[in-house]
Amino acid sequence: MERLDHMTDLSLELDPLRGRRSGLEHALRLAISAGRLAPGAPLPPSRTLAADLGMARGTVVNAYEQLIAEGYLIGRPGVGTTVAHRVEPLNGSAHGNVALRHHLLNISLVPGESDRSSFPRAAWMASFRHVLDTAPDELFGYGRSTGLPGLCTALADHLARARSVRVRADDIHVFGGYSDALHHLLHALTVHGVTRMAVEDPCIPSQRATLELAGIEICPIPVDAEGLDVDRLRASGVHAVIVTPGHQYPTGVVMGPERRRQLIDWATSTGGWVIEDDYDGEFRYDPNPPPALQGMGPDRVIYAGTVSKTLAAGLRIGWLAVPEELGASMRTLRDRCSVSSVEQATFASMLSTGRLDRHVRQMRQRYRKRRLLLERTISTIPTLRLIGAAAGLHLTVVLAPGGPDEAAVVRAGL
Amino acid sequence: MERLDHMTDLSLELDPLRGRRSGLEHALRLAISAGRLAPGAPLPPSRTLAADLGMARGTVVNAYEQLIAEGYLIGRPGVGTTVAHRVEPLNGSAHGNVALRHHLLNISLVPGESDRSSFPRAAWMASFRHVLDTAPDELFGYGRSTGLPGLCTALADHLARARSVRVRADDIHVFGGYSDALHHLLHALTVHGVTRMAVEDPCIPSQRATLELAGIEICPIPVDAEGLDVDRLRASGVHAVIVTPGHQYPTGVVMGPERRRQLIDWATSTGGWVIEDDYDGEFRYDPNPPPALQGMGPDRVIYAGTVSKTLAAGLRIGWLAVPEELGASMRTLRDRCSVSSVEQATFASMLSTGRLDRHVRQMRQRYRKRRLLLERTISTIPTLRLIGAAAGLHLTVVLAPGGPDEAAVVRAGL
Repeated sequence: MERLDHMTDLSLELDPLRGRRSGLEHALRLAISAGRLAPGAPLPPSRTLAADLGMARGTVVNAYEQLIAEGYLIGRPGVGTTVAHRVEPLNGSAHGNVALRHHLLNISLVPGESDRSSFPRAAWMASFRHVLDTAPDELFGYGRSTGLPGLCTALADHLARARSVRVRADDIHVFGGYSDALHHLLHALTVHGVTRMAVEDPCIPSQRATLELAGIEICPIPVDAEGLDVDRLRASGVHAVIVTPGHQYPTGVVMGPERRRQLIDWATSTGGWVIEDDYDGEFRYDPNPPPALQGMGPDRVIYAGTVSKTLAAGLRIGWLAVPEELGASMRTLRDRCSVSSVEQATFASMLSTGRLDRHVRQMRQRYRKRRLLLERTISTIPTLRLIGAAAGLHLTVVLAPGGPDEAAVVRAGL
Repeated sequence: MERLDHMTDLSLELDPLRGRRSGLEHALRLAISAGRLAPGAPLPPSRTLAADLGMARGTVVNAYEQLIAEGYLIGRPGVGTTVAHRVEPLNGSAHGNVALRHHLLNISLVPGESDRSSFPRAAWMASFRHVLDTAPDELFGYGRSTGLPGLCTALADHLARARSVRVRADDIHVFGGYSDALHHLLHALTVHGVTRMAVEDPCIPSQRATLELAGIEICPIPVDAEGLDVDRLRASGVHAVIVTPGHQYPTGVVMGPERRRQLIDWATSTGGWVIEDDYDGEFRYDPNPPPALQGMGPDRVIYAGTVSKTLAAGLRIGWLAVPEELGASMRTLRDRCSVSSVEQATFASMLSTGRLDRHVRQMRQRYRKRRLLLERTISTIPTLRLIGAAAGLHLTVVLAPGGPDEAAVVRAGL
């Protein structure tokens, strides 16, 4: 590393493994992220910096322009180039993985988290106000244990349209998020005699913990480029499996048509249950995204969704589309729905007014752009290889031997 | 019964067992409740009705005045006396017990239910708006699994002040209502080796169902005029008990000081757990209500409260104050809090701004008046006897042989 102290106290670490422009851009991002370049601080004129670094002036100009496009810098005629101000203060202690978070601009690289700063406060407020202004007093009493009827109807419509889910409103069960839903579902499955369950290998680690707490034995089944290996599933002898066919977590693989057929065949022929965790099904950035698996086997597939990616995890709303055979047990085992009826009605209004659709369309564009930027950045390092579909709120990078390791990639703030 | 058809189609059933004025009032209430006197319908002039019934005019005037005070009738100068309009349309199918509900004025006699028409929509809206206007974006992410820190702090303060509960904010756990809280608590207790639990006899029937679903053996312990029989509890050999010491459900008995001491002694000496369900502790209509039991033994008592009586059951917010010994297990067993962080923040604002206190004070007055009216009405029937403290949202009536039976009392719309 070559250190350079400019008269404006600008200290940049230029990585000799990178090209000159890419190295300069990276060094500037790092200095800004680490706070060595404070918000509002002026950057040296491109001519000065180019002379100091022994670079062509055009290289510095291009690097500045790239960082202006990314929001790190601001270029104003007559003022020059300055560091952008923070969009909002960041409270690092609230997050588990500070290392994956760009302090400036609050860019988070924690996988699977929605952009909290984009929560549609105005739209949610409008729906909430409508509910409080118009709802009958009945809304404030004990509600139906499976969920507010109006929300279940709105969800059944929405899921049919957006994800080709085939479900009656009465077979939708509302929960306080996916975690609460899974908890109740596992209880019902154990009552139905399920003691061992298959999960994808790899899968999200918290899933295993939840199953273990429910006293269920875990049987990991490998995932390849087509998704879950159904032959291995069949050989395992389990009676239930949790899958993420739309966008496997964490590999990003989309389950192929043949595997889907095999999986439904397995469930139908063995009486097995398939839990489809469609956690980010609203965010596909390529044309013709595959529909939910549930539509191929509504009698054997329990479809799970939440607002955690589309709106906010903090709202704690999740739902299951439950086959009739299992629905009766779930009703019996459940005393009350744990979700506020006011919040359920607010979400129903977001759905029926089209406010949710508008928000999801906006966020799809925003996430797509961010993903492209991330892909472009990753592609500048030859040893890194992207896998998985262009979808959702995470992407998977394969590290090759000889290239930067995981810690280095994280440190670089990729 | 003597039937009377007035020129205004007024048909009244006068109960010969009642006094003339009481009988007339009762017959009018019944006619209004049953819809035979429609909202807005004019009543005969007092002179006319008195003549028709062979009563003194003063008796009819007094009966009208009483029913005006109760809201059944409206008296306007120059217009005469008419039947009051409904406060809101009633959707009977939403309720389990339509027989216990006065259709007109939406007077519900379902025990333990808050008055839905009194939900403080404006105050809740103000707190909600404040939250959406000022909350950091962090609120929309996955929150702490035991509950929003700001709410736990506000609750610890409130419970110390209002109910003498001794708890640190970090030992408050927030849930989606009492049912969700009990569910998680039972899970933690079973992990701690609890397989049998005592409940009060009688108790609310749903409690037994919840325990049975959790695989816990139930041991009913009789309640007398001082509360739970602690000698019988000790003899039972169980390691945990659920009690309602502030206002036993359904008998209304308040646990006496000596029983409280005995119960804490039992818990301390045996390592037993006491779950204190303080479901209506905010509503006492007599001076010097007893504080929560928890304050006498914060290491052995798990204190449970909800907003179901103070605000609305539909909000689905409940909490436990958990002794440290049990708190670690509860944290381990719980993946996420199922309550919306936006709603938690709204409730925290209701607490910290004093809006909740104001609402509870108003409702205490309102419920006290309704209770007095109900007591007065019941006292007109000599065979009925009230038991239990003047508290909460239910009262208990003992029926004597020879008097009206349960069905008759319910039919009379008492």
